[in-house]
Amino acid sequence: MNFSSDNVAGVSPEILAALVEANHGRAASYGSDEITARLEKRFAEVFERQVWVMPLISGTAANALALASLVPPWGMVYCHEAAHVATHECGALEFYSGGARIKGLPGAHGRITAAQLAALLPDGRGVVYATQPSAISLTQATEAGTAYTCEEIAAIAEVGRAHGLALHMDGARFANALVHLGVNPADMTWKAGVEALSFGATKNGTMGAEALIFFDERRAAECAFRRMRAGHLVSKMRFLSAQLEAYLTDDLWLRNARHANAMAQRLAAGLAEVPGARLSHPVEANEVFAELPEAVIAGLEARGFRFYRWNESSIRLVTAFDTPATDVDALIAAARELADEVSR
Amino acid sequence: MNFSSDNVAGVSPEILAALVEANHGRAASYGSDEITARLEKRFAEVFERQVWVMPLISGTAANALALASLVPPWGMVYCHEAAHVATHECGALEFYSGGARIKGLPGAHGRITAAQLAALLPDGRGVVYATQPSAISLTQATEAGTAYTCEEIAAIAEVGRAHGLALHMDGARFANALVHLGVNPADMTWKAGVEALSFGATKNGTMGAEALIFFDERRAAECAFRRMRAGHLVSKMRFLSAQLEAYLTDDLWLRNARHANAMAQRLAAGLAEVPGARLSHPVEANEVFAELPEAVIAGLEARGFRFYRWNESSIRLVTAFDTPATDVDALIAAARELADEVSR
Amino acid sequence: MNFSSDNVAGVSPEILAALVEANHGRAASYGSDEITARLEKRFAEVFERQVWVMPLISGTAANALALASLVPPWGMVYCHEAAHVATHECGALEFYSGGARIKGLPGAHGRITAAQLAALLPDGRGVVYATQPSAISLTQATEAGTAYTCEEIAAIAEVGRAHGLALHMDGARFANALVHLGVNPADMTWKAGVEALSFGATKNGTMGAEALIFFDERRAAECAFRRMRAGHLVSKMRFLSAQLEAYLTDDLWLRNARHANAMAQRLAAGLAEVPGARLSHPVEANEVFAELPEAVIAGLEARGFRFYRWNESSIRLVTAFDTPATDVDALIAAARELADEVSR
Amino acid sequence: MNFSSDNVAGVSPEILAALVEANHGRAASYGSDEITARLEKRFAEVFERQVWVMPLISGTAANALALASLVPPWGMVYCHEAAHVATHECGALEFYSGGARIKGLPGAHGRITAAQLAALLPDGRGVVYATQPSAISLTQATEAGTAYTCEEIAAIAEVGRAHGLALHMDGARFANALVHLGVNPADMTWKAGVEALSFGATKNGTMGAEALIFFDERRAAECAFRRMRAGHLVSKMRFLSAQLEAYLTDDLWLRNARHANAMAQRLAAGLAEVPGARLSHPVEANEVFAELPEAVIAGLEARGFRFYRWNESSIRLVTAFDTPATDVDALIAAARELADEVSR
Repeated sequence: MNFSSDNVAGVSPEILAALVEANHGRAASYGSDEITARLEKRFAEVFERQVWVMPLISGTAANALALASLVPPWGMVYCHEAAHVATHECGALEFYSGGARIKGLPGAHGRITAAQLAALLPDGRGVVYATQPSAISLTQATEAGTAYTCEEIAAIAEVGRAHGLALHMDGARFANALVHLGVNPADMTWKAGVEALSFGATKNGTMGAEALIFFDERRAAECAFRRMRAGHLVSKMRFLSAQLEAYLTDDLWLRNARHANAMAQRLAAGLAEVPGARLSHPVEANEVFAELPEAVIAGLEARGFRFYRWNESSIRLVTAFDTPATDVDALIAAARELADEVSR
Repeated sequence: MNFSSDNVAGVSPEILAALVEANHGRAASYGSDEITARLEKRFAEVFERQVWVMPLISGTAANALALASLVPPWGMVYCHEAAHVATHECGALEFYSGGARIKGLPGAHGRITAAQLAALLPDGRGVVYATQPSAISLTQATEAGTAYTCEEIAAIAEVGRAHGLALHMDGARFANALVHLGVNPADMTWKAGVEALSFGATKNGTMGAEALIFFDERRAAECAFRRMRAGHLVSKMRFLSAQLEAYLTDDLWLRNARHANAMAQRLAAGLAEVPGARLSHPVEANEVFAELPEAVIAGLEARGFRFYRWNESSIRLVTAFDTPATDVDALIAAARELADEVSR
Repeated sequence: MNFSSDNVAGVSPEILAALVEANHGRAASYGSDEITARLEKRFAEVFERQVWVMPLISGTAANALALASLVPPWGMVYCHEAAHVATHECGALEFYSGGARIKGLPGAHGRITAAQLAALLPDGRGVVYATQPSAISLTQATEAGTAYTCEEIAAIAEVGRAHGLALHMDGARFANALVHLGVNPADMTWKAGVEALSFGATKNGTMGAEALIFFDERRAAECAFRRMRAGHLVSKMRFLSAQLEAYLTDDLWLRNARHANAMAQRLAAGLAEVPGARLSHPVEANEVFAELPEAVIAGLEARGFRFYRWNESSIRLVTAFDTPATDVDALIAAARELADEVSR
Repeated sequence: MNFSSDNVAGVSPEILAALVEANHGRAASYGSDEITARLEKRFAEVFERQVWVMPLISGTAANALALASLVPPWGMVYCHEAAHVATHECGALEFYSGGARIKGLPGAHGRITAAQLAALLPDGRGVVYATQPSAISLTQATEAGTAYTCEEIAAIAEVGRAHGLALHMDGARFANALVHLGVNPADMTWKAGVEALSFGATKNGTMGAEALIFFDERRAAECAFRRMRAGHLVSKMRFLSAQLEAYLTDDLWLRNARHANAMAQRLAAGLAEVPGARLSHPVEANEVFAELPEAVIAGLEARGFRFYRWNESSIRLVTAFDTPATDVDALIAAARELADEVSR
């Protein structure tokens, strides 16, 4: 049973069906097709305003294109020190922006705060020797499996705006945060000050389809050239758009996220009662970080459970839209058994 | 009936089936899955030697990653002046390479020649003021719907090698050229001196899957970092690999290409007999370039036929793996009728 | 006697004296010194309006910083095919801009025309697959030793502006063109539509000091970061500014240019009477391009005259602010003798 | 009296004289002149082996060109967190390298240690998601006015080499460190494992001349293209080379550095006896960092002394090759007076 990531899961049946359905007849390429047109309208409904949408095949592409649109080549982007953009994208921001820099900030449970930024800024803004503070990137849900409230986001946006910084949201697990908070997409993004959103979907049931959402036409228009020269404008776009359309239809995305989150809660509740276990972070999305005795961790591995060792004494377990409750229960039971053996 | 490009076609049923089939259980992400492992072996069989394979979602990405791996930021790439890398990728090479330059050369029927390059080189090589001749990029089949013979490719590679230039092949329509020539993939690539190949498949029946093929481990290893930071390493890689595996199974790729080529031949033969028509280039793949009286062109458009106006008096018609013969015949018949009206 | 370039000449005595004079006491670094402040005022007088000035140490830096400030990474810059920015800067534009492209246009005597641009544009502007037409770069005086009239410049600027293109002037030999035309700096630049000027001085008597002049505060402010991160903001700036101040004092720059131009005229007049000689271009600055019999060219080389062979049958001779008339006369006399020998 | 930096000083008379001397006759441009040839030989003597030399006009250019030659675009460079390359160059490394990243490490008195690096590495090396550890940059003398011993440098180099990292030295105050340690240039650089050296000279008496020194021909050859396209190959190179030649003649560079260091020692000794004063770092070059009561700091400013406030309670004072002992004594006396007033 594989809890190593939500990207080891497959594809929601509704989305596969949409791909089969999209495969009829000929369609204009590079996004001039009807499905893509419908998708843009659907996103406008979801966000309660006009948005500019770029279907993409990876979150790294979405993040890098978004940030490169927000910062100059001599820009500085602030984020949490564990942010994917800082740690897992091999310098994608630097590449796409022509050399901008990332400053990872510490922060409990994967979150940075408005106060922290306020204390830091202007941080060299206007000084020619310094890379220029230009944007903030928040991951929602965070890399610690927590979520920013809309108020926290708005406070961060406001501090940034006061110093001329734009706000990007890496929403690789956007839906998971959304259903946890019980808010609507508009409140969690542009109404709180988000200017560009990496709208993740792959981890939550698509085959490989994300969307970069802009709330500003000028930036979207410019980004179209960035996308093209990065090789991210796909020819048979209808098959990306069809995935996203199905994802947004009949609340599939929300249902998928609710299931994944529920499985994470179930897992957290079960692990919390394992002797010697301790949750590292509040569980607010579909990730569980737990400290466990080494013998338990090693024992779970020996029994074939897959997950990441996060640091010396903790592991990360990720649930997905299709994680069966039986898998969760099996892991909990195994952990209990192993803990019992340890304590004997 | 839409002859505007082969990327307006959909997906081969076998490939859709492979996607459905791949969607069972969990699989390691980012290319560590079993399907991707099988694919690399399959490609080794196809090319009769070890190769390093990167499944990608666009030909522009394949071309840019390949060329950036072959040239320094101050490099010069030679290609035909109509090459996709020179005209349709919005500076992807410049972006990926950190500023390399493209020199488009004239040449009949979309082809450049070894003699032409020999006359041009060394072209500033070794002179610090000049961008440095570093690679040649050949499109196979060419943008004029013709194909280089293996001997022509080898001759070009040899001239390049004598001056330290690497050879890249943009194989967006690789299969179409291959079946036209009746040669095997090894002869048309590494045996002729090709060092990096953009192996196209999307235009010939996949949903969105290409492969960048290296014949050199060191370059492939370095390119892995380029791919990652460009956002082109997809998480659920199995679904890219499954498309390519199906594509290479039971000669699907060759069957698809043969059909598309046959339809182009049928189209060319039909158009050649239309009064006032003239084929601009030999038809050696799945593209037909034809000069026609303006009234015929406008008439076809009015009847709903879709194609590109190439220049003032000529059009481009592209056939695909699933173009019905009836569509071809309908277009020919319509062109004849229109030409008859004109001549009356 | 060395006619190979004007950069083989040394430094005007007035400029050396200014360096010695500037070396008194301490001075704020990085351009906050008094000499740099005076220089900015002096340039404002010269150009009859406020300007933003960056003293630099090379024309390549000035060109690249200027153009990178005018075009996006996916921009296209138009210039004459022989322009220094296209042929001699090893991809500096590509580097500084993050991948913009240059299109060199043919044109008699080193000049491109407004009509030529009008026929070419919009050239893909607005099409996402194409690098975007963004700027025009004119060399004044041109690489053929000719000068654009103010009217020609204004006509080119107007065509560009109609399509959203900015205008840059590479004024490596700005003073030479200016005194030839007998116009003032304002007319030849911003009044004609120039938005950024590489104001050359090194070839005309400074030790190594050029200025990038902006007529727009916003672009200059942004370019300050580009300059810094390119390592072109020198610490002891006063010594660059002192050179330029002396250059602009008591018309030194104009006197130097007049002398160089006069020597070129003398040279051209003399060569024109050499049997078998033919001037390739009108002589409007300090460069003479002449076709001569091979025996004459080889003979001059054998006698120790230094110059560039431009193509098979022509050479380039460049005069400088300090070229003695006796050197010019010696070359003419030698060429005559050699031509006489040939014809015998 | 200005102690704000050593770059507020002027030029050594010997160097000005060399510029006047170099201004005779014509000379080949772009480094093909005789003075530059002599300089390369002189540097070979200084370093006791063949070296490849690039005269440059700024230390930022030297650092950025050096590091871009040592790391790939996805590289990581380690340095002290206060290093100039990390804090004062506006992203020059990112620009020149095409997106490499800097990691600033903490460390007492401006120094990092081999043990610190050993504990950190391999730090993601070989992992495609991570920027790749590629080089270490040491500042000698450090930004805290201290110097690494040759043994410390060698130990750092060895840890780096074990993980495939190259070693760069930012020698903006190279001579100051050298004379402090009493070692020779070879021991402090290539014999200790340094592969590229930014050889500073501007802060120590030249007008604006640094040298990038490579100990490896291949890297130097490649860097020649980087230099050209960055606009750092100056045409009248002889005037850069002449400065450096004079700098290295008759031990001028060592004499200048010894004087500056002696003045720093005098200053440190005097300040150490001021009531309430405390030196922040050992004084091993020409910089003094001192904590002083705010009233003393403000009083010195009010009396016209110029220096940097480093953090809330400390200041930085820099001496130069030409700082008069009387200036130093005047500052000490003023500080004492002010401290006495405070304590009264």
